[in-house]
Amino acid sequence: MAGGEFALIERLRSRLGTEGRGVRLGIGDDAAWLDPAGRQLVATMDTLVAGRHFFPDVSPEDLAWKALAVNLSDLAAMGAEARWCLLSLALPQREKGYEAWIEAFATGWSALADRYGVTLAGGDTVATDGPLTLSVTALGLTGHGVMRRDAARPGDVIWVTGSLGDAAAALNLAFVERGHDGQAFPCSAPQRDALEARRLRPTPRLEFGATALASGVLCAVDCSDGFLADLGHILKASGVRAQVALDALPLSPELADLARTDPERLQRWPLTGGDDYELILCAAPVLSTAMQEAARTLSLRLTAVGSILPAAPDARTTITLTWRDEPLPLPSTWGHVHAL
Amino acid sequence: MAGGEFALIERLRSRLGTEGRGVRLGIGDDAAWLDPAGRQLVATMDTLVAGRHFFPDVSPEDLAWKALAVNLSDLAAMGAEARWCLLSLALPQREKGYEAWIEAFATGWSALADRYGVTLAGGDTVATDGPLTLSVTALGLTGHGVMRRDAARPGDVIWVTGSLGDAAAALNLAFVERGHDGQAFPCSAPQRDALEARRLRPTPRLEFGATALASGVLCAVDCSDGFLADLGHILKASGVRAQVALDALPLSPELADLARTDPERLQRWPLTGGDDYELILCAAPVLSTAMQEAARTLSLRLTAVGSILPAAPDARTTITLTWRDEPLPLPSTWGHVHAL
Repeated sequence: MAGGEFALIERLRSRLGTEGRGVRLGIGDDAAWLDPAGRQLVATMDTLVAGRHFFPDVSPEDLAWKALAVNLSDLAAMGAEARWCLLSLALPQREKGYEAWIEAFATGWSALADRYGVTLAGGDTVATDGPLTLSVTALGLTGHGVMRRDAARPGDVIWVTGSLGDAAAALNLAFVERGHDGQAFPCSAPQRDALEARRLRPTPRLEFGATALASGVLCAVDCSDGFLADLGHILKASGVRAQVALDALPLSPELADLARTDPERLQRWPLTGGDDYELILCAAPVLSTAMQEAARTLSLRLTAVGSILPAAPDARTTITLTWRDEPLPLPSTWGHVHAL
Repeated sequence: MAGGEFALIERLRSRLGTEGRGVRLGIGDDAAWLDPAGRQLVATMDTLVAGRHFFPDVSPEDLAWKALAVNLSDLAAMGAEARWCLLSLALPQREKGYEAWIEAFATGWSALADRYGVTLAGGDTVATDGPLTLSVTALGLTGHGVMRRDAARPGDVIWVTGSLGDAAAALNLAFVERGHDGQAFPCSAPQRDALEARRLRPTPRLEFGATALASGVLCAVDCSDGFLADLGHILKASGVRAQVALDALPLSPELADLARTDPERLQRWPLTGGDDYELILCAAPVLSTAMQEAARTLSLRLTAVGSILPAAPDARTTITLTWRDEPLPLPSTWGHVHAL
């Protein structure tokens, strides 16, 4: 986008890319020069496409928050400390230009980035004839290894941070509001707003991820595709099975309230809904006290939802689900096609 | 793209992401875990959109090469050693799927990546309703600083690697072949092929960039927007002016041959054409011998094309152009809107 590109980049630089820990040279050269200070690097990249991963009418503030949050959540799942980001924006041509849009985007971005000391160190803006498309690369640091998905062992406790299913419930409301297929359900305005906030502004669990790693936890993923799907990634990579108590899954007060009248929803949203951006961690029981203490310090809910079982070659599925200690059939799909 | 996404990622992982220097954990977890081994990091990200930055009918092999090359060229301009990449593919739905496409893409990618020992460490594949869009993040390492665009000083010699203008000439031919506006010109099939190879498969000057940095060169950019535009970035960032001898600009044998009959083209393509992915370096004269020696060792053409002058607040332009020691007016535009 030629001249316009440089103006947008300068605007992003002046709002988001000014200074930062370990930034020797930020936006404005061919590449950023960054100082890991002897530590190791954790790198992830996620792309969001309008009409696929977010509604085209989303506010630039919320979009920026979410694009950053989903990447920071990947760093959290590794136990890394978030440090730097690169951002690529592919922008459709539009008459009114992007000056105000970029300002609002920068506001939403910095609301999250400043919380964790993440600096925008580079990136790219281009024009596209297609939908608005954002790619974010997040770079973090670790001094002592990472949590990985192939490190679950039989006997491990399965932990979940925060609560599950809120974003999926909110997405259903949002679909219905926009005249698409979706599950309508009665809820109050405050309930709706609480769910919607979880959908639009997920909280990457960076502090807890780093603390868990430091405490000796070896295995985690972030819960983005749906609890069953993401736990399934751990089980496949680690070659183990799991037992999960559905009635133990952590629900927000709002979702618990709504689900009370309708257990079928309780089953679907927290299990397969996706977009929670909580952490699923597997840890030896000896670490339970330390983990619970760490969560308490961070005022973060942490719930034991099941345990890792040894592989059983003849088992029909890797996950056994219970409800009040009775076996429960698994839903037919484990995850979701990313919102929308 | 749900199930399809995991299949494509697995295919990319098995072809491109298996092992690599400093890769502790590659594709397949929430993020990659990479070991800079105590060195500093250089990071860049570039996005290419079908119909904007490449013709939609480009082969997947050539597209992969170019998407990687333009990013590695940014690392070369900093003097960094290329090490790891992240790749995001936003793929339009299509009936015949992407299996064969990904295989061909991987072939083109590894043809360049293997040359420099660059490992694909992560990324993302998503579906899009718009044009094919690729974002690449390239990560490199440096042990002793970087070359930057704000470090040109009066008296510095301006150097250019390789030759300029080939890609721009080829782009004109490609436009005409596709029935778009473009400058047709008579050329033989071998000439056309040579120019087209430079357009489709630019060579990032990584070895020379690293050697120049190690020799003490402080200032470089890669020549992607056009020689005048990119030199202009140096001049603006460094607060200096430049004198450039147009007749000294390095041309390939093919372009020199074609331009002989038409000096107007000679002026336009090498000066403003863009997509050359050569390096423009500014270095104190005391470094000239070492730079020429390094270029000779690498069998790389290196040409002195001008010199850096002090700032002159009343000068009408930051670049003075000469042709056989006579002043020459500057073209009205210095750069190009990225091909196409």
